[in-house]
Amino acid sequence: MTVVEVPAPVKADVLCDALPYIRRFAGRIVVVKYGGNALMSANGADHLATSQGGAITDVPLALFAQDVVLLRSVGILPVVVHGGGPQIGSLMGRLGKLPEFRDGLRVTDLETLEIARMVLVGKVNRDIVGIINTHGPLAVGLSGEDAGLIKARARDPKLGYVGDVVAIDASILRRLVAEGLVPVVATIGSDSSGQAYNINADTVAGAIAEELEAEKLVFLTDVEGIRSDIADPTTLLHELGCGELDALVESGMVSGGMIPKASACTHAVRHGVNSAHVLDGRVAHALLLELLTSEGVGTMVVR
Amino acid sequence: MTVVEVPAPVKADVLCDALPYIRRFAGRIVVVKYGGNALMSANGADHLATSQGGAITDVPLALFAQDVVLLRSVGILPVVVHGGGPQIGSLMGRLGKLPEFRDGLRVTDLETLEIARMVLVGKVNRDIVGIINTHGPLAVGLSGEDAGLIKARARDPKLGYVGDVVAIDASILRRLVAEGLVPVVATIGSDSSGQAYNINADTVAGAIAEELEAEKLVFLTDVEGIRSDIADPTTLLHELGCGELDALVESGMVSGGMIPKASACTHAVRHGVNSAHVLDGRVAHALLLELLTSEGVGTMVVR
Amino acid sequence: MTVVEVPAPVKADVLCDALPYIRRFAGRIVVVKYGGNALMSANGADHLATSQGGAITDVPLALFAQDVVLLRSVGILPVVVHGGGPQIGSLMGRLGKLPEFRDGLRVTDLETLEIARMVLVGKVNRDIVGIINTHGPLAVGLSGEDAGLIKARARDPKLGYVGDVVAIDASILRRLVAEGLVPVVATIGSDSSGQAYNINADTVAGAIAEELEAEKLVFLTDVEGIRSDIADPTTLLHELGCGELDALVESGMVSGGMIPKASACTHAVRHGVNSAHVLDGRVAHALLLELLTSEGVGTMVVR
Amino acid sequence: MTVVEVPAPVKADVLCDALPYIRRFAGRIVVVKYGGNALMSANGADHLATSQGGAITDVPLALFAQDVVLLRSVGILPVVVHGGGPQIGSLMGRLGKLPEFRDGLRVTDLETLEIARMVLVGKVNRDIVGIINTHGPLAVGLSGEDAGLIKARARDPKLGYVGDVVAIDASILRRLVAEGLVPVVATIGSDSSGQAYNINADTVAGAIAEELEAEKLVFLTDVEGIRSDIADPTTLLHELGCGELDALVESGMVSGGMIPKASACTHAVRHGVNSAHVLDGRVAHALLLELLTSEGVGTMVVR
Amino acid sequence: MTVVEVPAPVKADVLCDALPYIRRFAGRIVVVKYGGNALMSANGADHLATSQGGAITDVPLALFAQDVVLLRSVGILPVVVHGGGPQIGSLMGRLGKLPEFRDGLRVTDLETLEIARMVLVGKVNRDIVGIINTHGPLAVGLSGEDAGLIKARARDPKLGYVGDVVAIDASILRRLVAEGLVPVVATIGSDSSGQAYNINADTVAGAIAEELEAEKLVFLTDVEGIRSDIADPTTLLHELGCGELDALVESGMVSGGMIPKASACTHAVRHGVNSAHVLDGRVAHALLLELLTSEGVGTMVVR
Amino acid sequence: MTVVEVPAPVKADVLCDALPYIRRFAGRIVVVKYGGNALMSANGADHLATSQGGAITDVPLALFAQDVVLLRSVGILPVVVHGGGPQIGSLMGRLGKLPEFRDGLRVTDLETLEIARMVLVGKVNRDIVGIINTHGPLAVGLSGEDAGLIKARARDPKLGYVGDVVAIDASILRRLVAEGLVPVVATIGSDSSGQAYNINADTVAGAIAEELEAEKLVFLTDVEGIRSDIADPTTLLHELGCGELDALVESGMVSGGMIPKASACTHAVRHGVNSAHVLDGRVAHALLLELLTSEGVGTMVVR
Repeated sequence: MTVVEVPAPVKADVLCDALPYIRRFAGRIVVVKYGGNALMSANGADHLATSQGGAITDVPLALFAQDVVLLRSVGILPVVVHGGGPQIGSLMGRLGKLPEFRDGLRVTDLETLEIARMVLVGKVNRDIVGIINTHGPLAVGLSGEDAGLIKARARDPKLGYVGDVVAIDASILRRLVAEGLVPVVATIGSDSSGQAYNINADTVAGAIAEELEAEKLVFLTDVEGIRSDIADPTTLLHELGCGELDALVESGMVSGGMIPKASACTHAVRHGVNSAHVLDGRVAHALLLELLTSEGVGTMVVR
Repeated sequence: MTVVEVPAPVKADVLCDALPYIRRFAGRIVVVKYGGNALMSANGADHLATSQGGAITDVPLALFAQDVVLLRSVGILPVVVHGGGPQIGSLMGRLGKLPEFRDGLRVTDLETLEIARMVLVGKVNRDIVGIINTHGPLAVGLSGEDAGLIKARARDPKLGYVGDVVAIDASILRRLVAEGLVPVVATIGSDSSGQAYNINADTVAGAIAEELEAEKLVFLTDVEGIRSDIADPTTLLHELGCGELDALVESGMVSGGMIPKASACTHAVRHGVNSAHVLDGRVAHALLLELLTSEGVGTMVVR
Repeated sequence: MTVVEVPAPVKADVLCDALPYIRRFAGRIVVVKYGGNALMSANGADHLATSQGGAITDVPLALFAQDVVLLRSVGILPVVVHGGGPQIGSLMGRLGKLPEFRDGLRVTDLETLEIARMVLVGKVNRDIVGIINTHGPLAVGLSGEDAGLIKARARDPKLGYVGDVVAIDASILRRLVAEGLVPVVATIGSDSSGQAYNINADTVAGAIAEELEAEKLVFLTDVEGIRSDIADPTTLLHELGCGELDALVESGMVSGGMIPKASACTHAVRHGVNSAHVLDGRVAHALLLELLTSEGVGTMVVR
Repeated sequence: MTVVEVPAPVKADVLCDALPYIRRFAGRIVVVKYGGNALMSANGADHLATSQGGAITDVPLALFAQDVVLLRSVGILPVVVHGGGPQIGSLMGRLGKLPEFRDGLRVTDLETLEIARMVLVGKVNRDIVGIINTHGPLAVGLSGEDAGLIKARARDPKLGYVGDVVAIDASILRRLVAEGLVPVVATIGSDSSGQAYNINADTVAGAIAEELEAEKLVFLTDVEGIRSDIADPTTLLHELGCGELDALVESGMVSGGMIPKASACTHAVRHGVNSAHVLDGRVAHALLLELLTSEGVGTMVVR
Repeated sequence: MTVVEVPAPVKADVLCDALPYIRRFAGRIVVVKYGGNALMSANGADHLATSQGGAITDVPLALFAQDVVLLRSVGILPVVVHGGGPQIGSLMGRLGKLPEFRDGLRVTDLETLEIARMVLVGKVNRDIVGIINTHGPLAVGLSGEDAGLIKARARDPKLGYVGDVVAIDASILRRLVAEGLVPVVATIGSDSSGQAYNINADTVAGAIAEELEAEKLVFLTDVEGIRSDIADPTTLLHELGCGELDALVESGMVSGGMIPKASACTHAVRHGVNSAHVLDGRVAHALLLELLTSEGVGTMVVR
Repeated sequence: MTVVEVPAPVKADVLCDALPYIRRFAGRIVVVKYGGNALMSANGADHLATSQGGAITDVPLALFAQDVVLLRSVGILPVVVHGGGPQIGSLMGRLGKLPEFRDGLRVTDLETLEIARMVLVGKVNRDIVGIINTHGPLAVGLSGEDAGLIKARARDPKLGYVGDVVAIDASILRRLVAEGLVPVVATIGSDSSGQAYNINADTVAGAIAEELEAEKLVFLTDVEGIRSDIADPTTLLHELGCGELDALVESGMVSGGMIPKASACTHAVRHGVNSAHVLDGRVAHALLLELLTSEGVGTMVVR
């Protein structure tokens, strides 16, 4: 870390700016959704086939892990939630499993569910836990099935084992966080008969943030943030209220994969989370900069 | 549960027999190794291809899970360790991955490691957690990579990512157990660079039992126990000392997959574990009977 | 304990049946009234004159003590309350003290009170404490005068020192129970001037169960239980509600010494105790069977 | 309490004198042996026959109880041990039980033991507990059989159930004292088979003081203290060392019932008790004066 | 301490009288205002010029300190508040600072405030702390500026830095008292900008007593107490209600420096303090006598 | 705070650099000596005469206070020790007190001691406490006389009340620090008779750092640091060992007021303090920069 060229007064300014944030957020939980795309784009290729088997080489994931560890080291309590769509698709392809559709919607049959669970819990989750733990024994991987964390039910029988969140029992998260650990959550839930379901990770991140009464809910994405005109990069919004975001969704300016994120942001902020953030995960140390400086690196949703 | 036909004095006898064991073992940890064969034989077929995607149908696993929950309910503290060799082989086959040998020994290359990790952590571990949790939110799945649980190193560079246990950091297990939870451990370890390794589950079970100063180390197998003459079923041993077991190994009467179990038993008993057990997992409620009655269902190794 | 002849599946059944009860009642208080008749009939003779001076020879008392110790060993918290009418009568006889009556009711003058107190606190209580403590230093004898346990007042001046319960201060019981001890209570109370009174033990047992918010109030008697037709042994009731029991008392089907027991049962169940039981103390291990099996050995009163 | 006539400076002097003692002894245990003679002489008659059945009328006992309560109120921790020889003799007489001698020594047969236990635990202990508790729910009566307090064995088979102290398990005393209660101990012990024994109360008081590492061991007697010449009242000793007391016993100047007291004093002082005291229990508030003023009211034994 | 001439029964009487007060007040806070006049009259001269530089020679202060330490030693929790008007005047004189008046009222300009703060915090507070600490490391000096203890505001801009109490944050006092220490408070307060103010010590003592829900508020003065007729020494009042004291103030019978004391007494007693006392600090051990005897040495104000 | 112009990657660099220091020092004590010269030079004039009476206007003191508060806010535990020589001289001058010398050394007579105590405890200490507390109720002023903090003795009778440190009882500091408060210590000590002494503040700072096993001992001075050639500014040393510093003192390159600092540094580092620092207090935020960046702003002494 070659920081010697930064003049002392600048350093003092940055520290005087950052320390009050550290004070304010110390002991507070920050739920961070880390997307499968981020992981995938980092590699630019099919991960299972080409990665080095768990050895850590992904630069953006490594910087993200460093941020998580630095935040934890000053008493801020990160909880990581992740997806893994591209990685699931990749293994399905290798196993010759063809996607199935019913009424135009993708179906998750039992085999697809087993593949999704293996990839999310046995691969993506492991990769994130592993890279955090190169800094020390901090991360603990969890599936939503552990200790009743995510209670789920089928969204629609026709879609098979696609689940909705029924309830979050966050006690296991509270325990781990209280012990100084960083939970990393794969978003498989289960119903009372023990049947597993695959659940949208954005929704789970929001539900966990609410249940934990988190200080912040942060989505690390591969876009700059939310724009008031999706076509115009100059309309990037730095801060907006829930109502404004609702309007953007209704007007179609927020669309596609951003919709569940937007929905999770407004729901969380309306249910006890102080602020929600859509950050550009491609910016190095986006998480650190967003939390510890007065300057933001994406869009903040407030009440 | 139709127990009405058992006469009251018999019930009273069984209870008077069992309660002192409950008293003695309450608050004590029992490490149970549940083997992949047990799981496989329960299904009699390739699990990934044919199972019902996480829904619980395996009878022996269900009885095992019931025992774990009953023991926990009276204050005995089970920690489950599992393997999954047959399940790994099955997925490798489906992916067209051919086993590789060097100098006659099987090699675990990076792709094999990733497959093993996905199957152990993302499938077998999940199945066990899931079936226990049909009784309540008790089980939490862990990989040895979580919170630094299993520190490993390569056994032999030629064998690739086959690891030996360097150290066990059991703090995460102690925390979960203290919270009333049942840890279920998949035996993937990692070195300080974050590289994962696949490790023999019998060895891990023994190392964890020692580190936790467990009351008992129990191997649930698909044999009756240990015989003094492997060819003669009438020579089943109910109890033997470490020295006697060493002699049986040296004489070749204990062989094959039983060797790492025997080795883990004697090492554990010599390092603080009160007794080690090789039980016949095919007997219904073998675990309950072994722990809570004066009659054993397998072989007990004592100092 | 010769239980070897019971087949393993039967044992497993009994244990699978019992363990959920242990789980449910662990940490819960069970108040057991052990009657003086039970003690007396056990000996079949004047105890003071013929017993072996405190050495333990009474079989039914010994089995009762074993049940108390076994229950305590699995975390259930027994509190024993006892009477001792026959033993008091016996010493009075030896001292040449004639019973006195006023308006047809028996009078407890000062000398009778002193004799009752000596016998209850200095003999019966000691016998029960002693036999429990052959299993370990578990039992502590208490009189209702200790630490303000039973606050009493005269029932009727004409009857002398026969008392009614004014208030129970159960703090000493809670402390002893919390320390893992088994309180054994002799039912002498006192008023604020320090005057002692002799009090009906059934009533005290009920009042203590209520104050402790006990799980159960159990009367160990020398009858099978409560019958709907007192003359017909086939009408034994296994479970009945408070209202039904009230009706049986009013109709005269419950009478004599059973009346204070019935009254204590219904009052306790209506004031926070989950269930009350009238058991046949002559059945070996009646207490253990009633608490830990799905089959009962007497009458249970529920709300 | 008419103290108005004492001038303020005198009061200030007494308080300035007393407060440092309160500070020094706060949180420290003082074991006080209260003798059966004191109780008897207070009444001047057979207590069982003539007392008012537990109502409190004994003046010296009442003053003693007041001292105990006052000391406890300022944080000093009294533990009371008592005997009751005269009271036992009285009941034996009424029951027509003749003392039995073997080789010139009094024998305690089973009936005598039962009588002794009834009187000590059921009468004398109750009287002391009762009078203390007129000040509030402070005292708890204990027999040495409770919670394994006094482990005993036969002194000599010929003497029957006369016991020696084998071990003191003071945990029940520590618990009660820690809860702010005042234990009152009757000196019946038991062996591991549950057999009770009658034990010399002076010896028990000393053994308990040692086990509790008491600040003081105090004998309240009916003499002024220890004299260097038993025949000469002017030779009363205010303070003496263990060696000096040993010499007085050897020379015969200390004799009779004072011998077990002297022996308990020197043993206790040599095993961790700071000082032992033989006080004149006939002086009103002897205990208070000895503990809280610089002037003593008897003999103090120091190392 | 020559108390040997006091007869034992008198001592016993004084102790029996005092111990219940110790019990009642143990763990309770007593706020004592010690006046600058008391300190000054003790010396009879300008202290700064003539004292021995912190060495302790003041007899009344020494007796007061002894009382504080004795009370603390038996578990009563003193908090000392002090003024120091005469000492401030003395240093102002030496610095040639002339008192300034505006509209007939004395003005506290910045220099006067600095002098007052130096004298109160750096001299009077130190003298009291020092003399208490000759008995052990008990006292801790505090200014109202410490840890936000006294939040103040200007009474009247024309009077400069004379302050009124806005709020008391007694957490620092509670912490020190809980640690067994004796806080000694100089009555300088500050506003949120950090500006200091000099505040009337009687008012501060009352406000602190209220905030701490003290048992007693005690003013040690140089008068005997409050009289119903200020001119007639025989009309000294031993106890009076708030309303009576209000009437005496209105009628002019209470006047001058006694007015803020009277006002603090009635306000405190009406806001949770059990009683307030105006004592004659010239009586040796006035504090001890008032708290621990049934005879008072001044005037007690009750509700 | 105008930090917007600093580019994000620079900020991220500074934070990534600082956070590990925060983690390392969190929960660790840093003892900071703040000199009277710093305070004086900040004002450039006689403070008592010209200051605004406690209102905060000193810029360097304000920046120092901000650093203290920021460090505390992220869990680092500052303890401030201060001197005040120039301020003492100023008041002595105003009071017409002439310095007295004996054998060429300055003498502290009783009046000088009283003046020193008033100024240190009643003025300088108050100014520092006041300015810190504009950020919240954090600082608590202490004199070494409080709760036995600094036990002192006369250095030399001829010098009067100049003291040496005999012992530090840091319990009051540990208590305050544990409560989240910042102790500010004036360096007056006392002997067991209560006599006060004025003590060199550098020495006290070192002794307190040792007793608290501080992470760091920091001297904020008005020089750049320690030079290997006192005459050559280019020889400023950034880090040196104790032996090197000893050599510089012996060679005369370290001299004057730097000698007690150098001596305190080497003694502290040799007795459990990790490092000692001589910083240039004239650099804004010197404390923050030294603790939280890899670049130092003065001289660090290590073992």
